[in-house]
Parts: sequence; structure tokens; C-alpha cells
Amino acid sequence: MKVGIIGAGQLGRMLALAGYPLGLKFHFLDRAADTPGGQVAPILVGDFEDTAKLTELGRTVDVITFDWENVSASALASITDPASAIARGESANGTRARVWPPAMALATSQDRLLEKELFSILKIPTPPFAAVDSLADLERAAGAIGVPGVLKTRRGGYDGKGQFVVRAAQDIERAWQDLQGQPLIYESFVRFSREVSLIGVRSTANETRFYPLCANTHAEGILRHTAAPFVHRALQREAERYLQRLLAHFGYAGVLTLEFFVARGRLLANEMAPRVHNSGHWTIEGAVTSQFENHLRAILGWPLGSTAPVGHSAMINFIGSLPQRERWLSEPNLAFHDYGKEPRPRRKVGHCTIHETSAARRDSRLRRLLKLLPKS
Amino acid sequence: MKVGIIGAGQLGRMLALAGYPLGLKFHFLDRAADTPGGQVAPILVGDFEDTAKLTELGRTVDVITFDWENVSASALASITDPASAIARGESANGTRARVWPPAMALATSQDRLLEKELFSILKIPTPPFAAVDSLADLERAAGAIGVPGVLKTRRGGYDGKGQFVVRAAQDIERAWQDLQGQPLIYESFVRFSREVSLIGVRSTANETRFYPLCANTHAEGILRHTAAPFVHRALQREAERYLQRLLAHFGYAGVLTLEFFVARGRLLANEMAPRVHNSGHWTIEGAVTSQFENHLRAILGWPLGSTAPVGHSAMINFIGSLPQRERWLSEPNLAFHDYGKEPRPRRKVGHCTIHETSAARRDSRLRRLLKLLPKS
Repeated sequence: MKVGIIGAGQLGRMLALAGYPLGLKFHFLDRAADTPGGQVAPILVGDFEDTAKLTELGRTVDVITFDWENVSASALASITDPASAIARGESANGTRARVWPPAMALATSQDRLLEKELFSILKIPTPPFAAVDSLADLERAAGAIGVPGVLKTRRGGYDGKGQFVVRAAQDIERAWQDLQGQPLIYESFVRFSREVSLIGVRSTANETRFYPLCANTHAEGILRHTAAPFVHRALQREAERYLQRLLAHFGYAGVLTLEFFVARGRLLANEMAPRVHNSGHWTIEGAVTSQFENHLRAILGWPLGSTAPVGHSAMINFIGSLPQRERWLSEPNLAFHDYGKEPRPRRKVGHCTIHETSAARRDSRLRRLLKLLPKS
Repeated sequence: MKVGIIGAGQLGRMLALAGYPLGLKFHFLDRAADTPGGQVAPILVGDFEDTAKLTELGRTVDVITFDWENVSASALASITDPASAIARGESANGTRARVWPPAMALATSQDRLLEKELFSILKIPTPPFAAVDSLADLERAAGAIGVPGVLKTRRGGYDGKGQFVVRAAQDIERAWQDLQGQPLIYESFVRFSREVSLIGVRSTANETRFYPLCANTHAEGILRHTAAPFVHRALQREAERYLQRLLAHFGYAGVLTLEFFVARGRLLANEMAPRVHNSGHWTIEGAVTSQFENHLRAILGWPLGSTAPVGHSAMINFIGSLPQRERWLSEPNLAFHDYGKEPRPRRKVGHCTIHETSAARRDSRLRRLLKLLPKS
């Protein structure tokens, strides 16, 4: 079986590395050959919108997936829609690869407004929000929802980009100046005690499993570290209920991640990602079956593997540049991951995962290791 | 850093898969492109004796290793020997890649007589043996060492090939007819209670670690399954002492495996393999650091990872053909490995590793799973 992966970043690379032991083959599509994925599998070089390339990819693989959510959902449709293939004079069968996760989940995750509206429809609590298409909209939203709040682009936001925190009423005008010219959304600024994420996986054979909650720490909009399992039975149940609604709504297959704020002991959904997720990297060593392997099993209709944690793990992102490799390799029980990327400010170039027998030991070791990180 | 691997079988494939997370790149040399290794990394197609190909490989990588021991030691010398490069009119620097493990260990392992003689010199107990180059030699050896015994080719034996068991005096002539025409060795037939192997690793920075002993079960000369750790403090100490002598003798870097018979409670060395070993596949999931990752760390001079076992593991070889994939993937705590090979009788096409919290649970599960295997 051959899997096509649109996007050859570190997520795609880790998908391929999880799939090789299962005997799978891979083919990437990305804009450059020397990408993390392109270093470990064949790659088609082309734009994500290039329907000819997408069709070519679709012809050579059994199933297509993607490693980030800014792939064009409409371009994806060119692979899956037999009518458009026939219109191009091609055999419908020849171009019709299955694409998982479903394009609808991708499209929803690409638009913060659609996403929040869906959360509301499915009764998944989310911070108050309003669409903003004019300064008047923004003023109205800030009045109704309150200040502080966050003005965000509806589309294309990524690792904290495309956001403006409105701390007080006088920031409104500046926020508008900064982000105007594109569809926006205003959201209440949540004072949270914690950020957690739930990673779930559903197979085309309708089997569903959830990993334990992960506790995430961001800085400047970028995930810095994750500790898992975050053991909280009530929140785990609640989060699984919400994620289950999304999986069912989309007729989903693959890994779906839902990020939450924990505020006054309750979950507020922040955003979803229709893919394997940075907060799940610890599952490579810290769970019986990794999110990457389970994503592949899910889209191929194979039985899912256990999502149970093994011990207590923490994952630290390497951002900007890698730390001194030999120093970190000499740490006991530490798995080192280098994505093969050039250093660049704010870029995720690798991560490591540590393993301990108790949460307390893990946490104290995590604190010690964080002090060794180069400044980024 | 780029690692060249001569031989692109499943061992090479698993080396590459262990090295990718560390940010390493790989380049294989093997006789066919669609090999287990060639499916996961670039490959030069050529013969192992082809010095032009070996030189080409040496030029593009930082260090060279090999995934099986029938690589020609003299051809390897063409990469490492700057004089022969200059004789061909090439720059010595341009062709001089480091090769690990040392060619001398490879050459010794390729000749059962040299190997047994070295064991004797290093006072590593081994079954009585004698060189056989004529029927008279064989008769003399059978007389001195006794019957039953095993007549083996000195070179090229592999998975039980090139051996003839002399059960009684009247088999001597037939054994000679079967194997004559090549250098032979006659060994005492050991009535062992168990077969175990010790996998050790030594780095170019002179750091050494040993995995726990593995208990191996062969049938028809092919490893069928391995259980580890085989916990026996005295035998572990004894085995480490012997392997340490070999590592020191060769000035070794990389993984070195030593297989033993356990007879009357003592170890008798059977053979060594200067490479990662089938009896160490369980370390991928069952040890903190796999033999594959540690082999790479060792030949690159990086700090070695912990060789401590995690729980109790058993590895089952898939021989001839893979079992029904979905049935096996639905087993809890089972890691499935498909090498991407075509089915063929007696061929190792994959393996699986199970994980349990006690040796007793592992052993009973192993017995159950063995019954599910297709006949091979």
C-alpha cells in the first residue's frame, strides 16, 4: 500500500517513519524537495494548489492524507471528485484516490469562524466570538463580548501569527489597522488555568480511540512543551464527549486534535486540527501506539492500536535551532528528534521526549531540561 | 551526517529507520533497488565487490557500515585504504570514508575457523573444533572430537545452509560428499539446554554497553523467536566478559553479537556477528535505546543510549510469508514489522514484538501467538 502525503514537514516525516515498519510506502507533495518528508521518501515538487500535481499524486497512491491544515480544500476536491476528472478527459477511477481526513473537516479548521460556529452547533463550549468585517463590527463585538479580547484572521493563522490582543478599548482601532482587509473574528480573551489537548482517532472501519489529555505550554503562540498523561478523569470524559461529536459530524477517519482552555475547571474549545498534532509527539515513545501509526491504521481501515500511555512523558520542542546534540543524547531515557531542517527563528526544528515513572519525577526533570535550552 | 550502508536488507532498513529521527541521512549499496533498505532511502545498485561503487558510496557519506557479514572484507579495504585510491589516480581524502565495524572483525566472522581460533586465543569457551580439508582430516577430527558432530563450510554459511550433521560414523563419507570442495570445519555437536545471545555496543569514543541476554529458539537453522531479558546474573556477567574481550581485541565500534549455547550451566560461544542482530529486534520497543540506534551512535562517536529493557519482550520472526496483518494488528501491545519483501520459503519477511509486565505473561502469550503463525 502506498500513502500520499500532501505537505512534507516534520509531521509528514514522522507519519512515514511510523508507516515504514508496517510495510507502507509513501509519496510526498510539497513545494521543495529538501523538506523533512522529502529526506525520507520520494517527493513530487509542486504547489498544493496544483491540480495536475495532485492528480499525479492521486494516481500513484492508494490513499491521500495531509500533514498540515493549510492545504487547499478545493484543490483536494480535484482528486476526489470524479466529475472534474471526467471533465478533464481522464478516467474517473484512475484519479480517484481516497482522501482522509475528510475535506470538510479541513475546510472547517481553515476558518476560525466556521470552526467556532460548528462548536456552538455541536454544543461544545467555546469562548464567546463574533465575525468582524468592519471597524463597526469590531466595536460592536468588543462591546458585546468585552475587553480584553483577541482579534484574529479567520484564515491562515499559524503559530500565533495573524492575531492581535485587544487589551483595552483604545487598542481597537490599532487592531483593526493591523489586520483589516481580510475576514476576521473577535474572541473573548480567556483567562485560563491550563491548556490541554485531546487527540482522538477514528478509523474508516468506525473504530474510535482517545489518547489521554495532554497539558500544553505555549509562549509567543508556539507550543513549547507538553506533559502527558494529564490525569483528570472528569475532564477526560468531557473532552472525549466533545471530540466524539466532531468525529461523528464529519464521518471522520484519521487523527483529530481538539485544543482546550481549562477555565474555572471547565473546558472551552479553542481550535481543532484535522491531523496528527505537535502535542501528540510524546506518543512515539510514551504510548503503546503513536498518533502517527494510528493515523495510518485509521485511514487504511486497519485495527487501531492501544492509545494507553506508558509511564509519564514530556515533550520539549526545539525552536529556532537544535540544542547541543551530544549533551542531550547523553541524557538517560531521552529520545531525540531532529527534523532535518535549517535553523531559523521561531521554526520547529526538532523535539525530544523524556520518560519517567511518575508525574513528579517527569515534571522536575522537565524543569531542569528547559533551563538547558538555547534561547530562541 | 550521512551514513552509507552496504547491504539493504531488513537490518539496513531498521538502521535507517532508527537513524532518521536523529537527523541522519542514509545511502545504501545493494544488488537490487527494490530491497527493504532501498524502499526507505536512496540506493546505489551494484555488487558488493564492485570497488568503483564502493568508492562512489565512500565519497558521498561520512561513515560506512554494513548490514550483513558476507560483504567482501577486501573490497571494503578499497574504501579505507588511501594507497589503493591513489593508485587509481584518485585523491585519498576523497575516497576515505571511515568503515565501522572494523574490517578485521568482518573477516574473522566470515571464516568459522578463524572465528573459533580467536575464541580459543581469547579464552572464550567454544565447542571442540578442527579444520577439515580432506576426508582423512574429517575422519581424524571425528575420531578426536567424537560423533555426533557438525561439518560446516568455513565461509558463506547462513541460516543453517552449508552444514551437515554427522550423527554416526557412517555419515562421515556422505557429509564429505555433500560439502567437499571448499574449506570446512568439524565441530562437536553440543547438547545444549538453551541458546542465548549477547548484544554489546562500543563507540568510537570507547564507551561500552551490553543488552541483557536474549533466549533464542531456532528451527532448521533459522531463528524463530527470541525472549528477553533472559535474566541470569552469572551468565550475563560471564557473557559480558567474553564479549568485552572481542570488542577490545578488534578495537571495535558498533554492535557486536555473540551467540552461545548453554550446556551444563556454562556458556559455549557458537558464533559472532559484527552487526546488529535478529535476536536484538525486540530492543526497538523493548529497550530504552534500540540496537539500531546504538549502532549508529557508536559508529558516529555519539553518547550511547541506555540498553536497559522495558518490561518483558518476545520477538517472533515471520518466515516465508507474513501472517494475516489485520488479525495481528488487533493484538494488544504488539508491534508489527513488515520488511517490504516478497514471500519466499525460509525468507525472513517481517517480525513482531510483544510486550508484557512479567516473563510468565510474556511466555504464555508467546506460546499462544506461535500457534497462529502460518506454517512455513
